[in-house]
Amino acid sequence: MQIAIAAHSGEYNEEMKIKVKEFLEGVSNECKNPVLLLGGYWGLMKEVVDQACNLGLRVILLLPIENEDVSPPDSVIKIKTGMEYRARSIPLIRSSDAVVALGGGVGTEIEILMGYGMGKPVFVLSNTGFSTDKLIKAFPDYFDHREVVKVSYIDNPRELAKTLCSLKSSETKDFG
Amino acid sequence: MQIAIAAHSGEYNEEMKIKVKEFLEGVSNECKNPVLLLGGYWGLMKEVVDQACNLGLRVILLLPIENEDVSPPDSVIKIKTGMEYRARSIPLIRSSDAVVALGGGVGTEIEILMGYGMGKPVFVLSNTGFSTDKLIKAFPDYFDHREVVKVSYIDNPRELAKTLCSLKSSETKDFG
Amino acid sequence: MQIAIAAHSGEYNEEMKIKVKEFLEGVSNECKNPVLLLGGYWGLMKEVVDQACNLGLRVILLLPIENEDVSPPDSVIKIKTGMEYRARSIPLIRSSDAVVALGGGVGTEIEILMGYGMGKPVFVLSNTGFSTDKLIKAFPDYFDHREVVKVSYIDNPRELAKTLCSLKSSETKDFG
Amino acid sequence: MQIAIAAHSGEYNEEMKIKVKEFLEGVSNECKNPVLLLGGYWGLMKEVVDQACNLGLRVILLLPIENEDVSPPDSVIKIKTGMEYRARSIPLIRSSDAVVALGGGVGTEIEILMGYGMGKPVFVLSNTGFSTDKLIKAFPDYFDHREVVKVSYIDNPRELAKTLCSLKSSETKDFG
Repeated sequence: MQIAIAAHSGEYNEEMKIKVKEFLEGVSNECKNPVLLLGGYWGLMKEVVDQACNLGLRVILLLPIENEDVSPPDSVIKIKTGMEYRARSIPLIRSSDAVVALGGGVGTEIEILMGYGMGKPVFVLSNTGFSTDKLIKAFPDYFDHREVVKVSYIDNPRELAKTLCSLKSSETKDFG
Repeated sequence: MQIAIAAHSGEYNEEMKIKVKEFLEGVSNECKNPVLLLGGYWGLMKEVVDQACNLGLRVILLLPIENEDVSPPDSVIKIKTGMEYRARSIPLIRSSDAVVALGGGVGTEIEILMGYGMGKPVFVLSNTGFSTDKLIKAFPDYFDHREVVKVSYIDNPRELAKTLCSLKSSETKDFG
Repeated sequence: MQIAIAAHSGEYNEEMKIKVKEFLEGVSNECKNPVLLLGGYWGLMKEVVDQACNLGLRVILLLPIENEDVSPPDSVIKIKTGMEYRARSIPLIRSSDAVVALGGGVGTEIEILMGYGMGKPVFVLSNTGFSTDKLIKAFPDYFDHREVVKVSYIDNPRELAKTLCSLKSSETKDFG
Repeated sequence: MQIAIAAHSGEYNEEMKIKVKEFLEGVSNECKNPVLLLGGYWGLMKEVVDQACNLGLRVILLLPIENEDVSPPDSVIKIKTGMEYRARSIPLIRSSDAVVALGGGVGTEIEILMGYGMGKPVFVLSNTGFSTDKLIKAFPDYFDHREVVKVSYIDNPRELAKTLCSLKSSETKDFG
């Protein structure tokens, strides 16, 4: 199971660190052969990568051209996309069986919407203090009238991992 | 001035046709050397392209690989990006001096957020009946905490064109 | 007719300037509604763009992210691809009805091979003094065993333009 | 060490199978923590992937949008680039510490030239019977006048692996 993790590119607090821990322990315990895909090694993404490596999870980075010279732990595979920030999110989301947003700014919001557009199951951690918390006000269920994939807003990271890992693999439908 | 027009990929009503007309007449009358960039030749995008060509405006299409064999009027230049739907939106938005969203679904929403992320002036036509109308509930001013470019929601297409065409060219700042 | 022009990114001599002139005058006189696509505004590409603008030809630039802040004449449309050098060559070649290589280094060679791979008619100006002159030694007719599109090596720029402009539009076949 | 393997998309003979075996055994024995990057799971690429998995090597596929629904062994990670054939070769080559071409058609030739353009060490297996054998006639040492990275043509797959695995990591220089 390939899981795209969308997360903030900047600062985060201690509470967020704990939420990442709870989420990743859940993934580690309950998902079958998880591979985590992330878009960088800075900000909250770095926290996720470091904790995931400590748990022995496999991690792939899809790096934008603006910031491709990063030095994650040795086991991490780095794909240099040769493309700008938003463009590198395409292979990140497209390669995933599910998208998890742990909170962030507009880059994370775009990845959430891309997940929906590509017909992927999308899980948004709520109550993070980041801008992604606001999406539910506008889009409590779906991001447009086509209502193909219902977005899940979940505020407990353990529960999020549990729901994610119980996903049956299914056909996704790209609807543009 | 290169203007990216984000618009619905599907059906639209008569009222929308009139709004497109009012917007494009405004652009034609008030913008200096406008070039319109669109992401396809179907749905509401086709309506915009056809009306723009009738007004003698220059139009460039940035086409996704899933739908690149379209037949717009002869004067239209077609760029086949070789990339999927969301990826083709990158050069569309990145090449623009401003982004105008005339209403649409998740693809249009993504283009609006990309515009903000790339630091472009973004104008969203409101009261269209499309899903983009809902964005203002979550993000009345900015799409994240960085508050770099204030998004303009405007429900009068003539006024939108007027505001757009009075933009002074300025440095945009890509903030990822 | 959309024509991709592949050309050197660096220095060139007076003789090359004249060859560009002869080629572009031919295109201007004999092609129907030509639109020129180029990958930059520096080196020999800049020479082509400037001369083409003087002749009133329409020009579109497909710019790589490493060098997107260029200032060509006002009539030129700039597409910022958000992608690195080789990646920006994809929409350049894919959007063309034919590919013309006026001489260059490895970037130009790649564009020639991409043209063949996408099944486009490819014309290579020979005897330029650039590295592209060497391709004919290895590949006098085709770039691989599939032999789908025969490459034309022509050393007279007027004749190259004439042959190019007499192309009948035809189905191209992308063969990977 | 991340190694891009460029290889034919179509048929191959028994002799080629043996060469793949010799090359991969060399990589398995002599490279430190090798990760193989390939652009598909068909033709000679599939042969490489299957043999590599049998040897327990880590494999990442960078898939083009035209052929992304492939079913390699479970341990293989699939990146769906959302881009056409040539475009998916960009992250493949850009993410590598070295490029190895085992023989192929124009797609493989393009990947070889991309490797050179991006300043990567490039190794071409010679005497394969594929079109890549012809490159040496035109470019025995370098692909252009800048002469930055000397290409290595080697006809013994064991020796190729040995030379590859003895590479010191070094700064590469993208020269466009």
